[in-house]
Amino acid sequence: MTKNRIHNFNAGPSAMPIEVLEEIQSSFLNYKGCGMSVTEISHRSQLFDDIINDAQDRIKRLLNLGDKYKVLFIQGGASMQFALLPMNFLNDSNTADYVDTGTWSTKAIQEAEIQGKNIRVAASSEDRKFSYIPKNIEFNADAVFTHITSNNTIKGTQWHTTPDTGSVPIIADMSSDILSRPMPDIDKYGLIYAGAQKNIGAAGVAVVIIRDDMLDKVQTTIPTMMQYTTYAEKNSMFNTPSCFAIYYIQLVMKWLEEKIGGLEAIDKLNRQKAALIYDIIDQNDFYQGTAEKEDRSLMNITFRLQDTDSEKRFIEEALSNELGGLKGHKSVGGCRASIYNAITLESVKTLAGFMTDFQKRNG
Amino acid sequence: MTKNRIHNFNAGPSAMPIEVLEEIQSSFLNYKGCGMSVTEISHRSQLFDDIINDAQDRIKRLLNLGDKYKVLFIQGGASMQFALLPMNFLNDSNTADYVDTGTWSTKAIQEAEIQGKNIRVAASSEDRKFSYIPKNIEFNADAVFTHITSNNTIKGTQWHTTPDTGSVPIIADMSSDILSRPMPDIDKYGLIYAGAQKNIGAAGVAVVIIRDDMLDKVQTTIPTMMQYTTYAEKNSMFNTPSCFAIYYIQLVMKWLEEKIGGLEAIDKLNRQKAALIYDIIDQNDFYQGTAEKEDRSLMNITFRLQDTDSEKRFIEEALSNELGGLKGHKSVGGCRASIYNAITLESVKTLAGFMTDFQKRNG
Repeated sequence: MTKNRIHNFNAGPSAMPIEVLEEIQSSFLNYKGCGMSVTEISHRSQLFDDIINDAQDRIKRLLNLGDKYKVLFIQGGASMQFALLPMNFLNDSNTADYVDTGTWSTKAIQEAEIQGKNIRVAASSEDRKFSYIPKNIEFNADAVFTHITSNNTIKGTQWHTTPDTGSVPIIADMSSDILSRPMPDIDKYGLIYAGAQKNIGAAGVAVVIIRDDMLDKVQTTIPTMMQYTTYAEKNSMFNTPSCFAIYYIQLVMKWLEEKIGGLEAIDKLNRQKAALIYDIIDQNDFYQGTAEKEDRSLMNITFRLQDTDSEKRFIEEALSNELGGLKGHKSVGGCRASIYNAITLESVKTLAGFMTDFQKRNG
Repeated sequence: MTKNRIHNFNAGPSAMPIEVLEEIQSSFLNYKGCGMSVTEISHRSQLFDDIINDAQDRIKRLLNLGDKYKVLFIQGGASMQFALLPMNFLNDSNTADYVDTGTWSTKAIQEAEIQGKNIRVAASSEDRKFSYIPKNIEFNADAVFTHITSNNTIKGTQWHTTPDTGSVPIIADMSSDILSRPMPDIDKYGLIYAGAQKNIGAAGVAVVIIRDDMLDKVQTTIPTMMQYTTYAEKNSMFNTPSCFAIYYIQLVMKWLEEKIGGLEAIDKLNRQKAALIYDIIDQNDFYQGTAEKEDRSLMNITFRLQDTDSEKRFIEEALSNELGGLKGHKSVGGCRASIYNAITLESVKTLAGFMTDFQKRNG
């Protein structure tokens, strides 16, 4: 690896494009010749307007969003969104559907319930430890929204088709797979949100993509900083935003558009990367995937070895070979390779080589 | 100015210590030899634990906080705190006092009112355009808290003594003067909060210092991400925090402790800096201070010239002399020099020299 950097398979915060890191570093004391660091410029300056507007424009172009959507930047990560969604859209006389695919979906449901909102769990995969995505769900046609988590970083599952909710807008937590593939059915979504620290940038901001008709439904009796309309009307600058995190997003979006070539290109690359690892897992039962094949994630590959001792040794030996972040989430154990957009094919090939070698030595 | 950097008098985001910027830059691709950027490491790692714990410890030492206080990091800036305070501490049967010293105080009051909370404006300086700090206020002895804004960045006023609220805990928005001077009467405060982007670090996080007895008063029916107890119990890592912004704070606190020498040293320096500018303002009426003398701020020096044309010329000529950020807030006009902790004596001397010269040429 160049410059003493390791192959980083962290689940988030996660590896970022080296080109982005180098650009941040090189201009850190003097941004675009203004004589200040990007962390020292006013958010009410033309320089920062250019940053935030470019970040939004690139996200709109990449996802082909059209005029009906606004891109907002809100602090607090996806977990803050779990609370804001019911606050903004649910009142005493309406309801929403949630699909529970584990962990983050479950937390989103809890944050609606703690507020006493009337929601329904339309489907759940808890019966088989959230190892799959529920199918053929009967959704409530009168719901204000249907909530899904498009990719589960911990269980290693991912929705590969968009559920049919009729005219009910889908709200999706896409924290761990946003901008990893094209979204031809974007029109079905009323709101998409994602913590930045996986596919988009550094921790400290969530991207919220909201359709105009959803803005009309926002409750106006909640605090100003909790209303989506505040962010839409003030271009996410009602107060000082998370400036550096937005700048970081701008650079990652520029990399995705200009260096990678957009979502079709990254999708192809992501499939190629995932196949390298899943092919090894599927060879025999030395490595065992934990998610059902048809629903497994292209972003987070979760697997077990024969026993926890072998897993511990696998993770330790990997690290001594400069392959980091392969430990599974503490709630499920095992191993996990997170291969988001910025993880290079070279890194994944190195991991595949190590996995094959480890198996030969221990199989 | 070294390295083509300007003298930066922005109100926030604002100038940061050059030593901090250089340290961030030099290790940006490989933090402490771990092979990753600090923006790529897991918040569940020992490396990040060391960062967040050191940032907290340094704030505790600098303010001499003792064991009764916890230091939290919450996203959303001070504006999010305006909403969280009434959510956490007010219910149907209690009340709070607020002192209105303009702008931010006014917004804090509005965010309690939008929630239908029962609060009282105990005093206001609106009668004279918020140009002073109210005195001899009769506070409600039954209030759950009394809210003040310790320094007003826009009006250029600052509390120079702590109000006597009896046994009622003070909650203070100290966004623009936190850690600028010692706080011998820290015991009177139940909660102190501050957006980071002035005296503490980069935008994207607020520091919240909370006394244990206030944690006992938190309402438990509000969303998890909005309860102060969540941050206290999870060391501000219920979810992924604003990692880079916390790392930035750690470095600024290290600079304040080790390079400057703590709060008494920075207080002396800040008074010296402010005196250089106020002495010029007080010489005659070429520059006119907008805040009453006894209440004027050591952080934000607000002043007018004879007319708006002169002000425009002053700001433009200053910028061509590498003195930036001197325009007053759009809501009040005029000029403003923000001279937070990281603004050097050299920068202030350069500004003083320019002001004297401009007066000679135009007086």
